[in-house]
Amino acid sequence: MTSNPLGNNKVMQVGVIVENIEETVKAWSRLLGVEPPSIAITDSFNISNAHYQGKPTPAQAKLAFFDLGQVSLELIQPMGEPSTWNDQLAAHGSSLHHIAFEIKGMEEHIQGLTEQGLGLIQRGEYGGGRYAYLDGQKQFGTVIELLEND
Amino acid sequence: MTSNPLGNNKVMQVGVIVENIEETVKAWSRLLGVEPPSIAITDSFNISNAHYQGKPTPAQAKLAFFDLGQVSLELIQPMGEPSTWNDQLAAHGSSLHHIAFEIKGMEEHIQGLTEQGLGLIQRGEYGGGRYAYLDGQKQFGTVIELLEND
Repeated sequence: MTSNPLGNNKVMQVGVIVENIEETVKAWSRLLGVEPPSIAITDSFNISNAHYQGKPTPAQAKLAFFDLGQVSLELIQPMGEPSTWNDQLAAHGSSLHHIAFEIKGMEEHIQGLTEQGLGLIQRGEYGGGRYAYLDGQKQFGTVIELLEND
Repeated sequence: MTSNPLGNNKVMQVGVIVENIEETVKAWSRLLGVEPPSIAITDSFNISNAHYQGKPTPAQAKLAFFDLGQVSLELIQPMGEPSTWNDQLAAHGSSLHHIAFEIKGMEEHIQGLTEQGLGLIQRGEYGGGRYAYLDGQKQFGTVIELLEND
Protein backbone atom coordinates (compact mmCIF):
# COMPACT_ATOMS: atom_id res chain seq x y z
CA MET A 1 0.00 0.00 0.00
CA THR A 2 1.31 3.44 -0.87
CA SER A 3 0.66 6.56 1.20
CA ASN A 4 -2.35 7.11 -1.04
CA PRO A 5 -3.71 3.61 -1.31
CA LEU A 6 -6.83 4.48 -3.28
CA GLY A 7 -5.20 6.80 -5.78
CA ASN A 8 -7.30 9.88 -6.28
CA ASN A 9 -9.66 9.17 -3.35
CA LYS A 10 -12.58 9.67 -5.67
CA VAL A 11 -15.73 8.04 -4.45
CA MET A 12 -17.10 6.50 -7.60
CA GLN A 13 -20.28 5.06 -6.37
CA VAL A 14 -22.60 4.49 -3.50
CA GLY A 15 -24.38 1.15 -3.71
CA VAL A 16 -27.86 0.51 -2.39
CA ILE A 17 -29.46 -2.91 -2.08
CA VAL A 18 -33.15 -2.80 -2.89
CA GLU A 19 -35.98 -5.26 -2.80
CA ASN A 20 -37.75 -4.02 -5.92
CA ILE A 21 -35.56 -2.14 -8.35
CA GLU A 22 -38.40 -1.05 -10.67
CA GLU A 23 -40.18 0.71 -7.81
CA THR A 24 -36.98 2.14 -6.35
CA VAL A 25 -35.89 3.51 -9.72
CA LYS A 26 -39.25 5.28 -9.99
CA ALA A 27 -38.90 6.75 -6.49
CA TRP A 28 -35.37 8.06 -7.06
CA SER A 29 -36.32 9.44 -10.49
CA ARG A 30 -39.14 11.43 -8.93
CA LEU A 31 -36.92 12.61 -6.07
CA LEU A 32 -34.09 13.68 -8.35
CA GLY A 33 -36.35 14.98 -11.11
CA VAL A 34 -34.59 12.92 -13.78
CA GLU A 35 -35.59 10.31 -16.35
CA PRO A 36 -35.51 6.76 -15.02
CA PRO A 37 -32.29 5.02 -16.03
CA SER A 38 -32.46 1.63 -17.70
CA ILE A 39 -32.23 -1.51 -15.61
CA ALA A 40 -29.58 -4.04 -16.61
CA ILE A 41 -28.79 -7.53 -15.40
CA THR A 42 -25.25 -8.49 -14.42
CA ASP A 43 -23.53 -10.96 -16.72
CA SER A 44 -24.08 -14.65 -16.20
CA PHE A 45 -21.28 -16.74 -14.73
CA ASN A 46 -19.56 -17.54 -18.03
CA ILE A 47 -18.73 -13.84 -18.36
CA SER A 48 -18.77 -12.64 -14.76
CA ASN A 49 -16.73 -15.48 -13.30
CA ALA A 50 -18.27 -14.30 -10.05
CA HIS A 51 -16.86 -15.75 -6.85
CA TYR A 52 -18.44 -15.42 -3.43
CA GLN A 53 -16.33 -16.37 -0.41
CA GLY A 54 -13.80 -17.88 -2.78
CA LYS A 55 -16.26 -20.14 -4.59
CA PRO A 56 -18.00 -19.70 -7.95
CA THR A 57 -21.53 -18.35 -7.65
CA PRO A 58 -24.35 -18.22 -10.18
CA ALA A 59 -25.88 -15.21 -8.37
CA GLN A 60 -26.68 -12.15 -10.44
CA ALA A 61 -28.33 -8.79 -9.79
CA LYS A 62 -30.45 -6.19 -11.50
CA LEU A 63 -28.65 -2.84 -11.60
CA ALA A 64 -29.58 0.77 -12.29
CA PHE A 65 -27.33 3.82 -12.07
CA PHE A 66 -28.13 7.46 -11.38
CA ASP A 67 -25.42 9.92 -12.34
CA LEU A 68 -25.06 12.45 -9.54
CA GLY A 69 -21.95 14.23 -10.73
CA GLN A 70 -18.77 12.83 -9.24
CA VAL A 71 -20.72 9.98 -7.75
CA SER A 72 -23.09 7.47 -9.18
CA LEU A 73 -25.84 5.94 -7.16
CA GLU A 74 -26.11 2.24 -7.92
CA LEU A 75 -29.32 0.40 -7.13
CA ILE A 76 -28.93 -3.36 -6.86
CA GLN A 77 -31.63 -5.96 -6.62
CA PRO A 78 -30.18 -9.41 -5.88
CA MET A 79 -31.14 -12.31 -8.16
CA GLY A 80 -30.24 -15.74 -6.83
CA GLU A 81 -27.58 -16.51 -4.30
CA PRO A 82 -25.09 -16.67 -2.73
CA SER A 83 -23.92 -13.08 -3.00
CA THR A 84 -23.05 -10.15 -0.77
CA TRP A 85 -26.11 -8.44 -2.28
CA ASN A 86 -28.40 -11.22 -1.16
CA ASP A 87 -26.80 -11.40 2.29
CA GLN A 88 -27.40 -7.69 2.83
CA LEU A 89 -31.02 -7.84 1.74
CA ALA A 90 -31.65 -10.84 3.99
CA ALA A 91 -29.93 -9.26 7.01
CA HIS A 92 -30.92 -5.60 6.70
CA GLY A 93 -33.62 -5.23 4.04
CA SER A 94 -33.32 -2.41 1.51
CA SER A 95 -30.23 -0.55 2.69
CA LEU A 96 -26.97 1.14 1.77
CA HIS A 97 -24.36 -1.48 0.91
CA HIS A 98 -21.01 -0.11 -0.26
CA ILE A 99 -18.80 2.80 -1.15
CA ALA A 100 -16.82 2.15 -4.31
CA PHE A 101 -13.45 3.56 -5.34
CA GLU A 102 -11.86 3.29 -8.75
CA ILE A 103 -8.38 1.85 -8.58
CA LYS A 104 -5.68 0.56 -10.91
CA GLY A 105 -4.12 -2.79 -10.06
CA MET A 106 -6.82 -4.99 -8.59
CA GLU A 107 -4.60 -7.74 -7.18
CA GLU A 108 -2.28 -5.40 -5.25
CA HIS A 109 -5.22 -3.50 -3.84
CA ILE A 110 -7.02 -6.65 -2.75
CA GLN A 111 -3.81 -7.87 -1.18
CA GLY A 112 -3.24 -4.57 0.62
CA LEU A 113 -6.71 -4.57 2.10
CA THR A 114 -6.75 -8.24 3.06
CA GLU A 115 -3.40 -7.66 4.84
CA GLN A 116 -5.23 -4.98 6.83
CA GLY A 117 -7.77 -7.55 7.90
CA LEU A 118 -10.56 -6.96 5.37
CA GLY A 119 -11.97 -10.21 4.06
CA LEU A 120 -12.57 -10.55 0.32
CA ILE A 121 -16.29 -11.21 0.11
CA GLN A 122 -16.98 -11.34 -3.60
CA ARG A 123 -15.36 -10.54 -6.90
CA GLY A 124 -16.24 -10.71 -10.56
CA GLU A 125 -15.80 -9.32 -14.05
CA TYR A 126 -17.90 -7.23 -16.40
CA GLY A 127 -17.31 -6.02 -19.93
CA GLY A 128 -14.19 -3.87 -19.64
CA GLY A 129 -13.44 -4.24 -15.97
CA ARG A 130 -13.67 -6.04 -12.67
CA TYR A 131 -14.85 -5.51 -9.14
CA ALA A 132 -14.14 -6.76 -5.66
CA TYR A 133 -16.10 -6.29 -2.45
CA LEU A 134 -14.14 -6.29 0.79
CA ASP A 135 -15.61 -6.54 4.24
CA GLY A 136 -14.84 -3.17 5.78
CA GLN A 137 -17.88 -3.18 8.06
CA LYS A 138 -15.92 -3.26 11.31
CA GLN A 139 -13.00 -0.99 10.37
CA PHE A 140 -14.77 1.40 7.99
CA GLY A 141 -18.46 0.97 8.71
CA THR A 142 -19.11 -0.20 5.15
CA VAL A 143 -18.31 -2.74 2.50
CA ILE A 144 -15.56 -1.26 0.32
CA GLU A 145 -15.82 -1.93 -3.38
CA LEU A 146 -12.83 -1.69 -5.67
CA LEU A 147 -13.57 -1.03 -9.34
CA GLU A 148 -10.98 -1.35 -12.09
CA ASN A 149 -11.94 -0.25 -15.57
CA ASP A 150 -9.52 -1.10 -18.40
CA MET B 1 -42.31 19.49 -5.07
CA THR B 2 -40.95 20.83 -8.34
CA SER B 3 -39.78 18.66 -11.21
CA ASN B 4 -36.34 18.87 -9.65
CA PRO B 5 -37.18 18.47 -5.99
CA LEU B 6 -33.63 18.39 -4.69
CA GLY B 7 -32.32 21.31 -6.72
CA ASN B 8 -28.93 20.47 -8.17
CA ASN B 9 -29.06 16.77 -7.25
CA LYS B 10 -25.68 17.12 -5.61
CA VAL B 11 -24.97 14.40 -3.12
CA MET B 12 -23.36 16.33 -0.31
CA GLN B 13 -22.53 13.60 2.06
CA VAL B 14 -22.59 9.92 2.80
CA GLY B 15 -23.08 9.23 6.50
CA VAL B 16 -21.65 6.23 8.31
CA ILE B 17 -22.57 5.20 11.83
CA VAL B 18 -19.57 3.86 13.71
CA GLU B 19 -19.00 2.29 17.07
CA ASN B 20 -15.63 3.90 17.76
CA ILE B 21 -14.96 7.08 15.82
CA GLU B 22 -11.32 7.43 16.90
CA GLU B 23 -10.47 4.01 15.46
CA THR B 24 -12.60 4.50 12.35
CA VAL B 25 -11.01 7.88 11.63
CA LYS B 26 -7.58 6.20 11.79
CA ALA B 27 -8.67 3.43 9.44
CA TRP B 28 -10.13 5.80 6.83
CA SER B 29 -7.10 8.11 7.09
CA ARG B 30 -4.80 5.21 6.31
CA LEU B 31 -7.03 4.00 3.48
CA LEU B 32 -7.32 7.42 1.89
CA GLY B 33 -3.75 8.45 2.64
CA VAL B 34 -4.84 11.71 4.28
CA GLU B 35 -4.36 13.38 7.65
CA PRO B 36 -6.99 12.40 10.21
CA PRO B 37 -9.69 15.09 10.44
CA SER B 38 -10.64 16.48 13.82
CA ILE B 39 -13.50 14.96 15.76
CA ALA B 40 -16.25 17.32 16.89
CA ILE B 41 -19.27 16.84 19.11
CA THR B 42 -22.70 17.99 17.99
CA ASP B 43 -24.16 20.92 19.88
CA SER B 44 -26.06 20.29 23.07
CA PHE B 45 -29.83 20.66 23.09
CA ASN B 46 -29.91 24.39 23.88
CA ILE B 47 -28.28 25.01 20.48
CA SER B 48 -29.30 21.92 18.48
CA ASN B 49 -32.97 21.92 19.48
CA ALA B 50 -32.78 18.30 18.33
CA HIS B 51 -36.05 16.46 17.96
CA TYR B 52 -36.40 12.72 17.48
CA GLN B 53 -39.79 11.37 16.41
CA GLY B 54 -41.25 14.79 17.15
CA LYS B 55 -39.95 15.04 20.72
CA PRO B 56 -36.92 16.88 22.12
CA THR B 57 -33.88 14.63 22.56
CA PRO B 58 -30.66 15.21 24.49
CA ALA B 59 -28.81 12.78 22.20
CA GLN B 60 -25.61 13.98 20.60
CA ALA B 61 -22.94 12.44 18.39
CA LYS B 62 -19.24 12.64 17.68
CA LEU B 63 -18.60 13.60 14.06
CA ALA B 64 -15.66 13.56 11.67
CA PHE B 65 -15.65 14.53 8.00
CA PHE B 66 -13.42 13.40 5.13
CA ASP B 67 -13.51 15.64 2.08
CA LEU B 68 -13.70 13.41 -1.00
CA GLY B 69 -14.31 16.06 -3.63
CA GLN B 70 -17.98 16.60 -4.36
CA VAL B 71 -18.88 14.37 -1.47
CA SER B 72 -17.94 14.34 2.15
CA LEU B 73 -17.84 11.17 4.15
CA GLU B 74 -19.32 11.76 7.60
CA LEU B 75 -18.46 9.40 10.42
CA ILE B 76 -20.93 9.50 13.30
CA GLN B 77 -20.59 7.89 16.70
CA PRO B 78 -23.82 8.17 18.69
CA MET B 79 -23.68 9.64 22.20
CA GLY B 80 -26.80 9.11 24.26
CA GLU B 81 -30.28 8.49 22.95
CA PRO B 82 -32.82 8.54 21.46
CA SER B 83 -31.52 9.30 17.98
CA THR B 84 -31.57 7.82 14.51
CA TRP B 85 -27.82 7.36 14.94
CA ASN B 86 -28.28 5.23 18.04
CA ASP B 87 -31.12 3.25 16.45
CA GLN B 88 -28.93 2.36 13.49
CA LEU B 89 -25.98 1.30 15.63
CA ALA B 90 -28.24 -0.85 17.79
CA ALA B 91 -30.00 -2.48 14.83
CA HIS B 92 -27.17 -2.86 12.31
CA GLY B 93 -23.85 -2.14 14.03
CA SER B 94 -21.31 0.06 12.23
CA SER B 95 -22.99 0.72 8.90
CA LEU B 96 -23.89 3.23 6.20
CA HIS B 97 -26.72 5.45 7.40
CA HIS B 98 -27.72 8.22 5.00
CA ILE B 99 -27.24 10.10 1.78
CA ALA B 100 -27.48 13.85 2.26
CA PHE B 101 -28.56 16.51 -0.21
CA GLU B 102 -28.19 20.25 0.22
CA ILE B 103 -31.46 22.04 -0.27
CA LYS B 104 -32.95 25.50 0.19
CA GLY B 105 -36.26 25.74 2.01
CA MET B 106 -36.30 23.11 4.72
CA GLU B 107 -39.99 23.23 5.59
CA GLU B 108 -41.23 22.81 2.00
CA HIS B 109 -38.83 19.95 1.39
CA ILE B 110 -39.82 18.16 4.57
CA GLN B 111 -43.45 18.64 3.64
CA GLY B 112 -42.88 17.36 0.11
CA LEU B 113 -41.18 14.21 1.33
CA THR B 114 -43.60 13.49 4.14
CA GLU B 115 -46.42 13.83 1.58
CA GLN B 116 -44.64 11.08 -0.36
CA GLY B 117 -44.80 8.87 2.70
CA LEU B 118 -41.37 9.43 4.23
CA GLY B 119 -41.55 9.85 7.98
CA LEU B 120 -39.56 12.67 9.57
CA ILE B 121 -37.24 10.82 11.95
CA GLN B 122 -35.10 13.55 13.42
CA ARG B 123 -34.21 17.16 12.91
CA GLY B 124 -31.98 19.76 14.49
CA GLU B 125 -29.88 22.87 14.11
CA TYR B 126 -26.19 23.64 14.00
CA GLY B 127 -24.26 26.87 13.71
CA GLY B 128 -25.36 28.26 10.35
CA GLY B 129 -27.82 25.62 9.28
CA ARG B 130 -30.20 22.79 9.98
CA TYR B 131 -30.77 19.18 9.10
CA ALA B 132 -33.58 16.69 8.83
CA TYR B 133 -33.48 12.93 8.46
CA LEU B 134 -36.37 11.28 6.62
CA ASP B 135 -37.10 7.60 6.58
CA GLY B 136 -36.51 6.64 2.96
CA GLN B 137 -35.49 3.06 3.77
CA LYS B 138 -38.42 1.43 2.00
CA GLN B 139 -38.76 3.74 -1.01
CA PHE B 140 -35.11 4.69 -1.52
CA GLY B 141 -33.12 2.08 0.40
CA THR B 142 -31.65 4.74 2.67
CA VAL B 143 -32.33 7.47 5.15
CA ILE B 144 -32.41 10.76 3.23
CA GLU B 145 -30.84 13.73 4.96
CA LEU B 146 -31.71 17.29 3.98
CA LEU B 147 -29.10 19.92 4.81
CA GLU B 148 -29.77 23.63 4.63
CA ASN B 149 -26.87 25.99 5.14
CA ASP B 150 -27.65 29.69 5.51
